[in-house]
Amino acid sequence: MEDQTIRVQLSETNKQKPKSDQLIFGKTFTDHMFVMDYSDPLGWHNASIVPYQPLTIEPSAMVFHYGQSVFEGLKAFRTKDGEIQLFRPTKNLERLNHSNDRLVIPPIDEEFVLKAIKQLITVEKDWVPDAEGTSLYIRPFIISTEPYIGVAPACHYKLIVILSPVGAYYKEGINPVKIAVENHYVRTVKGGTGEAKTGGNYAASLKAQELVGKEGFAQVLWLDGVEKKYIEEVGSMNVFFKIDGEVVTPMLNGSILAGVTRDSVIRLLKHWNIPVSERRISMEEIRQAHQDGKLEEAFGSGTAAVISPIGQLTWEGEDLIVNEGKTGEISQKIFDTITGIQYGKMEDPFNWIVNVETKSTVKN
Amino acid sequence: MEDQTIRVQLSETNKQKPKSDQLIFGKTFTDHMFVMDYSDPLGWHNASIVPYQPLTIEPSAMVFHYGQSVFEGLKAFRTKDGEIQLFRPTKNLERLNHSNDRLVIPPIDEEFVLKAIKQLITVEKDWVPDAEGTSLYIRPFIISTEPYIGVAPACHYKLIVILSPVGAYYKEGINPVKIAVENHYVRTVKGGTGEAKTGGNYAASLKAQELVGKEGFAQVLWLDGVEKKYIEEVGSMNVFFKIDGEVVTPMLNGSILAGVTRDSVIRLLKHWNIPVSERRISMEEIRQAHQDGKLEEAFGSGTAAVISPIGQLTWEGEDLIVNEGKTGEISQKIFDTITGIQYGKMEDPFNWIVNVETKSTVKN
Ligand SMILES: Cc1ncc(COP(=O)(O)O)c(C=O)c1O
Ligand SMILES: Cc1ncc(COP(=O)(O)O)c(C=O)c1O
Repeated sequence: MEDQTIRVQLSETNKQKPKSDQLIFGKTFTDHMFVMDYSDPLGWHNASIVPYQPLTIEPSAMVFHYGQSVFEGLKAFRTKDGEIQLFRPTKNLERLNHSNDRLVIPPIDEEFVLKAIKQLITVEKDWVPDAEGTSLYIRPFIISTEPYIGVAPACHYKLIVILSPVGAYYKEGINPVKIAVENHYVRTVKGGTGEAKTGGNYAASLKAQELVGKEGFAQVLWLDGVEKKYIEEVGSMNVFFKIDGEVVTPMLNGSILAGVTRDSVIRLLKHWNIPVSERRISMEEIRQAHQDGKLEEAFGSGTAAVISPIGQLTWEGEDLIVNEGKTGEISQKIFDTITGIQYGKMEDPFNWIVNVETKSTVKN
Repeated sequence: MEDQTIRVQLSETNKQKPKSDQLIFGKTFTDHMFVMDYSDPLGWHNASIVPYQPLTIEPSAMVFHYGQSVFEGLKAFRTKDGEIQLFRPTKNLERLNHSNDRLVIPPIDEEFVLKAIKQLITVEKDWVPDAEGTSLYIRPFIISTEPYIGVAPACHYKLIVILSPVGAYYKEGINPVKIAVENHYVRTVKGGTGEAKTGGNYAASLKAQELVGKEGFAQVLWLDGVEKKYIEEVGSMNVFFKIDGEVVTPMLNGSILAGVTRDSVIRLLKHWNIPVSERRISMEEIRQAHQDGKLEEAFGSGTAAVISPIGQLTWEGEDLIVNEGKTGEISQKIFDTITGIQYGKMEDPFNWIVNVETKSTVKN
């Protein structure tokens, strides 16, 4: 078990915080970060909050060569009352351990890391923006740092948590996007690492993304790597369709990431008694539903956008326009409800919210 | 085009070189490394040979999050006359660019990087060991260093070349290994990144490797990700079988790495008029050939071991013993010939060897 104390070393100078209308996702980071080391046989140790700073890593560190890395992404929200709250953080830490297992990285103590994240946010509380739709993005990640270029699981790792204030995803209202169905490249396959949040999956996705981006599409829709028939995800989001009154989403099959937003969408729909099912969905079925006038809505789900409506799906030269390119009713309702809960404007029937203590004084 | 001069900054103190019987692959590195930066719109620049040292990288650098990285592996050999020579380095640099393309990393000038590698080895010439079977392993790699956690190709990269002296792979003679056929996990799939030498493929392979390692197997044999029927690679080597007098190897299908050793084996076999073909090979075919007494040899091919004979293949509970668990005639002949060429003991009919200038004086 790791040493349960978190050492805090505060930075001497603080950065200037960007204005809330000038926040760009993932480019500005706060004044501090959380760092923890792993080594055999010590286990996870050296938990500390330190000034945000570059890492000093050997060129032979395994992460540079064999991609042994995992990460998570979640957000802290500021409520009207000035409180700070997290949305389902335990799901993210559970998933981090699931990713760790697939990548042969030693497990973390989820409770302890949640405590560390909360403490880090307490230190950085002034970095949580309060303008409509803004939030503080939290990026925990683990990298193998052992200086050894043999292909084997490493004996040294670092877990790091960095924070980045992010602007509103939909500054000018929700805008449905154009998606290209990808027939050549795949993100991953059953038996691969698709279920895990590991760097290699994202590296694999860049090429397809780049090619369709040049043609004016926002993202690709990934088909399964085995038959290239069944729908998996859209960009780095899970995907939902409303067909003839029923909401469907691809079932978790080993190559799809189990999104926290995906799970939240399903639970909300059930709560509302809207029929929802997780199952295999072929692209052919979607084309048929579209042709029959039964494809009512389509949207992606993920932490970044919460809900990203799909206005057009292009497959084999055919453009399937969904809901006249407008945001669907269910899509909007889910978006409003999840963000309502996140910002403390709506009731939280599922106990999804975890509060961050902001009144405490942090001692150096 | 990059600036074609290579700045050289020699280290003030040199490490003690390990004895040639104490060389461990990938743990000891030489006194210097080659580094080059990429940024938009400058392109590749800042080519320098500098003292081997840790990298200083932002925690938000893309390589830690989205695995945008590629690498190569080749060797320098010392001949009886004290000369230093490389084996087919242009093939590795060609492949590096192929990997770059798949990972949306800007291409390198292959000729220039070869020149840089040669110059680095000239600086480190005393690190090339001369004992039987030893060599200097060369590891070029490229990582995305841009401090941005958006999923998109980076605008900043580093190409680094590090060198590690390696001991003889077969200290006590060639020893055929036991291999387990992997039915659950896959390394990659068609449309994925299998053709590229990128970190994620190796990260994906760790779990299967770890599980079979506990059962006493040296490596796994990977089946295709689509049907889990066809043979792809073995561990991180290409694979060959001799069946009824003919040598066969899986054809390059998009998910198999185009090994330099694989290509060399094929060319040698053709040169010797031994029938060789690249085609789809199912595991069932191998079992049948074994049953019919026609599975004469099986071996992996790669830079590390050159040839690694397979003495046993275990599939679905069945142990297929190959050539009574002994090294086959062809396996041995290929090994002797390739290593013979590498160490300058044998004629080089294909012009595979590239010499490194060792007489020049390096100026600071
Ligand atoms: C590949 C992929 N799928 C789906 C998701 C959605 O997951 P979540 O809702 O937990 O953000 C993400 C990321 O966030 C992702 O990277
Ligand atoms: C996955 C994989 N396959 C095959 C090979 C063999 O390639 P080469 O002969 O170029 O070393 C390697 C590595 O060296 C590899 O990593």
